[in-house]
Amino acid sequence: MSGTVAARLINEHLVGGEPVAGGEIALRVDQTLTQDATGTLVMQELEGLRLDRAHTEVSVQYIDHNLLQADERNAEDHEFLRSACRRYGLWFSKAGNGVSHPTHMQRFGIPGKTMVGSDSHTCAAGSLGMLAIGVGGLEVAMAIAGQPLYLRMPEIWGVRLTGRLPDWVSAKDVVLEMLRRHGVKGGLNRIIEYHGPGLAGLTAMDRHVIANMGAELGATSTVFPADDAVREFLRAEDRADDFRELVADERASYDVEDEIDLGALEPLIAKPSSPGNVVPVREVAGTEVSQVVIGSSANPGLRDFAIAAEMVRGRQTADTVSFDVNPSSREIFADLTKLGATFALISAGARIHQAGCMGCIGMGQAPATGRNSLRTFPRNFPGRSGTREDSVWLCSPETAAAAALTGMITDPRELGLSYPDLRLGGRASVNTDMLVPPLEPADAEREELVKGPNISSLPDFPELPDRIEAPVLLKLGDDVSTDEISPAGARALPFRSNVPKLSQFTFTRIDEQYPEKAAELADGSGHVLVAGENYGQGSSREHAAITPRYLGLRAVIAKSFARIHWQNLANFGVPALEFTDPADYDRIERGDTLRLSALRGELPGGSGITVHNVTKAEDYRLAHRLSERQVEAVLAGGRIPLLARRAG
Amino acid sequence: MSGTVAARLINEHLVGGEPVAGGEIALRVDQTLTQDATGTLVMQELEGLRLDRAHTEVSVQYIDHNLLQADERNAEDHEFLRSACRRYGLWFSKAGNGVSHPTHMQRFGIPGKTMVGSDSHTCAAGSLGMLAIGVGGLEVAMAIAGQPLYLRMPEIWGVRLTGRLPDWVSAKDVVLEMLRRHGVKGGLNRIIEYHGPGLAGLTAMDRHVIANMGAELGATSTVFPADDAVREFLRAEDRADDFRELVADERASYDVEDEIDLGALEPLIAKPSSPGNVVPVREVAGTEVSQVVIGSSANPGLRDFAIAAEMVRGRQTADTVSFDVNPSSREIFADLTKLGATFALISAGARIHQAGCMGCIGMGQAPATGRNSLRTFPRNFPGRSGTREDSVWLCSPETAAAAALTGMITDPRELGLSYPDLRLGGRASVNTDMLVPPLEPADAEREELVKGPNISSLPDFPELPDRIEAPVLLKLGDDVSTDEISPAGARALPFRSNVPKLSQFTFTRIDEQYPEKAAELADGSGHVLVAGENYGQGSSREHAAITPRYLGLRAVIAKSFARIHWQNLANFGVPALEFTDPADYDRIERGDTLRLSALRGELPGGSGITVHNVTKAEDYRLAHRLSERQVEAVLAGGRIPLLARRAG
Repeated sequence: MSGTVAARLINEHLVGGEPVAGGEIALRVDQTLTQDATGTLVMQELEGLRLDRAHTEVSVQYIDHNLLQADERNAEDHEFLRSACRRYGLWFSKAGNGVSHPTHMQRFGIPGKTMVGSDSHTCAAGSLGMLAIGVGGLEVAMAIAGQPLYLRMPEIWGVRLTGRLPDWVSAKDVVLEMLRRHGVKGGLNRIIEYHGPGLAGLTAMDRHVIANMGAELGATSTVFPADDAVREFLRAEDRADDFRELVADERASYDVEDEIDLGALEPLIAKPSSPGNVVPVREVAGTEVSQVVIGSSANPGLRDFAIAAEMVRGRQTADTVSFDVNPSSREIFADLTKLGATFALISAGARIHQAGCMGCIGMGQAPATGRNSLRTFPRNFPGRSGTREDSVWLCSPETAAAAALTGMITDPRELGLSYPDLRLGGRASVNTDMLVPPLEPADAEREELVKGPNISSLPDFPELPDRIEAPVLLKLGDDVSTDEISPAGARALPFRSNVPKLSQFTFTRIDEQYPEKAAELADGSGHVLVAGENYGQGSSREHAAITPRYLGLRAVIAKSFARIHWQNLANFGVPALEFTDPADYDRIERGDTLRLSALRGELPGGSGITVHNVTKAEDYRLAHRLSERQVEAVLAGGRIPLLARRAG
Repeated sequence: MSGTVAARLINEHLVGGEPVAGGEIALRVDQTLTQDATGTLVMQELEGLRLDRAHTEVSVQYIDHNLLQADERNAEDHEFLRSACRRYGLWFSKAGNGVSHPTHMQRFGIPGKTMVGSDSHTCAAGSLGMLAIGVGGLEVAMAIAGQPLYLRMPEIWGVRLTGRLPDWVSAKDVVLEMLRRHGVKGGLNRIIEYHGPGLAGLTAMDRHVIANMGAELGATSTVFPADDAVREFLRAEDRADDFRELVADERASYDVEDEIDLGALEPLIAKPSSPGNVVPVREVAGTEVSQVVIGSSANPGLRDFAIAAEMVRGRQTADTVSFDVNPSSREIFADLTKLGATFALISAGARIHQAGCMGCIGMGQAPATGRNSLRTFPRNFPGRSGTREDSVWLCSPETAAAAALTGMITDPRELGLSYPDLRLGGRASVNTDMLVPPLEPADAEREELVKGPNISSLPDFPELPDRIEAPVLLKLGDDVSTDEISPAGARALPFRSNVPKLSQFTFTRIDEQYPEKAAELADGSGHVLVAGENYGQGSSREHAAITPRYLGLRAVIAKSFARIHWQNLANFGVPALEFTDPADYDRIERGDTLRLSALRGELPGGSGITVHNVTKAEDYRLAHRLSERQVEAVLAGGRIPLLARRAG
């Protein structure tokens, strides 16, 4: 991995460990990003840590998720976050300023910097030559407090791009091709680094599209070099001085290699209900569509909206389609409007929504049951749209706009249009007035946190017991996402600062009785969960660890775990155990009672942990990948009790 | 009332009764308007009536209320409504096309026509010289089926306008002045007719503002003449041929008279939590504001948005304010964008929302508890915003924009700006592509209604018993609104097609236990309600009659009733009884048991009904204002059971 952009970023920030794949390293963190759905817990954690002031170069709190305000809770959370920013010296990005990822890239992204964010798509900042990693909220709180980020050193996966994208094929199709080839687990424990001559045809915002959905591949992060395209981007954002070149050596070597000929790509689409179900659009053409949505951090650029606007300009979207447009930031909405694209979209029948994440995190725009919805979003996990039996497809803006016009899935090459020649102009409508800067330290110290009635404190969790004997309350399959563990959406999200309330939504998409059954067991033995591969993929929300823990979860035994959720489980005191022989998964049934007998002794070892199935009278071998540091946290009941104990 | 515009409209459509104030008349209905929050029940009623095809000249179903789509129910309701339009020969206005009232005015309003609508602001069409009346859904269903509208002949209230509005004072201040003078009951049983030389300075859309909020005065309707301003409006909408002059005679006489010198008005504002709490803006200047919202049918015109845009152009709204803009229709949003006003609003920090009612009916935009929200909306009833302890103020766009800039209530005259000289252009961006026309009869007959799982049938209600002995479950004060009886908002509205589910929200803003307590009594004696003046003001939703009825409401005894709710109670079999001596109201306590002994005999008489207070051992005299026709419906358990019995 020597000479790669990733290696340079890591080496420049290394404060502990050896950068050898699989070993734990510690990195200095320059920037942090939080959004409102996960940020309220982060601020509660800063409060718990008694932080005086942020130690990072830049920390920004964005309001982009909970914008609907069906009752007072969202507005009150925003007030709490504003007060926390004033208190701790963070930037505050007001509601309406935009989705965190493109906005951060436009205003704060700097080549060569590291960032952690309590949002799984934080990796989008890799588009500018940053090492940006989505983590649980507690990792962000620690970073704000000046602690390094600990992680298992990933492999570096070099993906060489050659050729040039054909007309009607765009950046989204590149990352969909990665998902078609490698699936949602293809990037686990890897940093994807794009390189090669094909980069020349991709703007920084195109790269954002690709880096963003590295999260869907399960990758730790995605990095691009900081080259002329990045220089041009920063110049257009009035930040030419923030540019620093950062490219791989000519002779850089990668742990794993792959290559994509951009010129050979065609329009692709992910079928319901996984970003990994990718097929060529032409194979599903003709399928009826009732909703088309353009927006989100997965296609946030001016060109992504402008190309759709040009396609529908002077035309009308189909009678049977709701055509929804979610501008990703105020700046992009302003530029779109200047270009005349907003007018074209409105005239063609678009419903234009406020700048923010909106339907991407189930904040409105839920489709009718079973009706096909085409979205330029990054995810289509079951129910994430807000509709239990949803049918969501992921595609490029070109493919989305084509469907809006015809009312059915349509390969945009078959529309008979000529590919729009976009003239986007070289200067963005830069306007920083919705970004409230940090207070001066002397003023910040006098600030009080403004806590509405819906903002609770974090619950206390006890130490890990030495012996756990508890039933398997759910037996889960592969690729269970955090959306299924702790649903987002308009009903649940307003409770995200209130663990007891939010816990009532835990796993209800899989089993409506889970919260009740778990609560019944909570005072006694608690319960355990058994899962397949890639448990906890998707969003970074630490609620997916905290709420089952609150309901008495004692351990998760899975074939494998998704990185962020695995870390969140450790942070909140739940051992994430893996089958040594994956075939043992099949021997356990829901309802079986499992016994872990000498956990406190066995856990530090890392392997050779035995679980006894009391119901079946048989034993299985388990292991884990937790570091010494993480084991200590798990034994203590989590990282916060550990710190509290040390402080006490 | 001879020679008035109102009299001419009534005489031209009279099919029964004598137009003498207080007597019941029957009017032919030319047009109907339904929106999605009330329309699904109307369509279920058309189904119950076995309608083959609409008998009206124009009937339009708008999708403007439930646009957030937090889950599948809203989208499924929209599909149901679309299918009902196809089946019954109605126009379908797609989500995003706009709020019903301004959109109807732009596309379908014709001077001299009558209209009923299942929305209390239907009266806004009076701006074009129509007689337009907000009614319960069942009245609309009957009108679509070709039945006349029955109503008590109102008084005609002539309001003579003189002078010209000063800078910084606009149409909203005119209707706020009416509310300041006369309160929310000032228009009960009246049609307000504006006339006089002051009209010359008010455009048709200005008159829409005034006619719309006639609903807040409790008026049956508001009419304006169809004069040059209306001619100009229709010309700008490409409908010059629809113009017909309709003005009052020189010697027209009114039942009641009033006069407003427009030149003497100043910026006004309605304080929380009634549209009748009006004071001059200067008296409350300096009050901190955390939200400003521009939009709704109460300020829907291009000028209403454009003036705000000009005020904030090149400036930035206050850090502490969320500035929300809800375009009222696609056409107006397109025009705003053409003018550069959209760009100015975005640049100043506005959150621009999809065209529709949005926060006005509690669909999002709920403010934080107790924080002041300034809105150009028509209503600020407690909790209507979605926030239980809300603090909502109503004002003009000028006053709203001033607060957005300063972060506090500000008399716009004190901003130090010169009053913007708007150049709006003479042609609207007419675009009818989101209006789906009715099918041809032969095609319509083959259509099936598409009913999602959340669309129930109307419940069956039994005949009125002769004897009612039941407890007073709630004792309510004056001016209780239908928002308090059956809340709208993002939680409740998705259930509006499902009476059993929706009933669980009934009165919960006043007493959370009401649904449970009522349900306990429902199988036995049921319950009665006692209320003060103007019971059931506000929105036209018939759910406010159906859901308490479903929970066992047997009778309401009040000092007086608001017109639409009074009619809805009769339609669904609940006798609306009035105290002969209002002082008896004070003698009844919550929990008292009341007995009505010989209702079936006493009700047809209209007065001299005795209610015995079993708890206090005393009698009170009651009367009612129901027509013979309505009494028959009440005795039958409602109008639908009555028709069913006749048909059977």
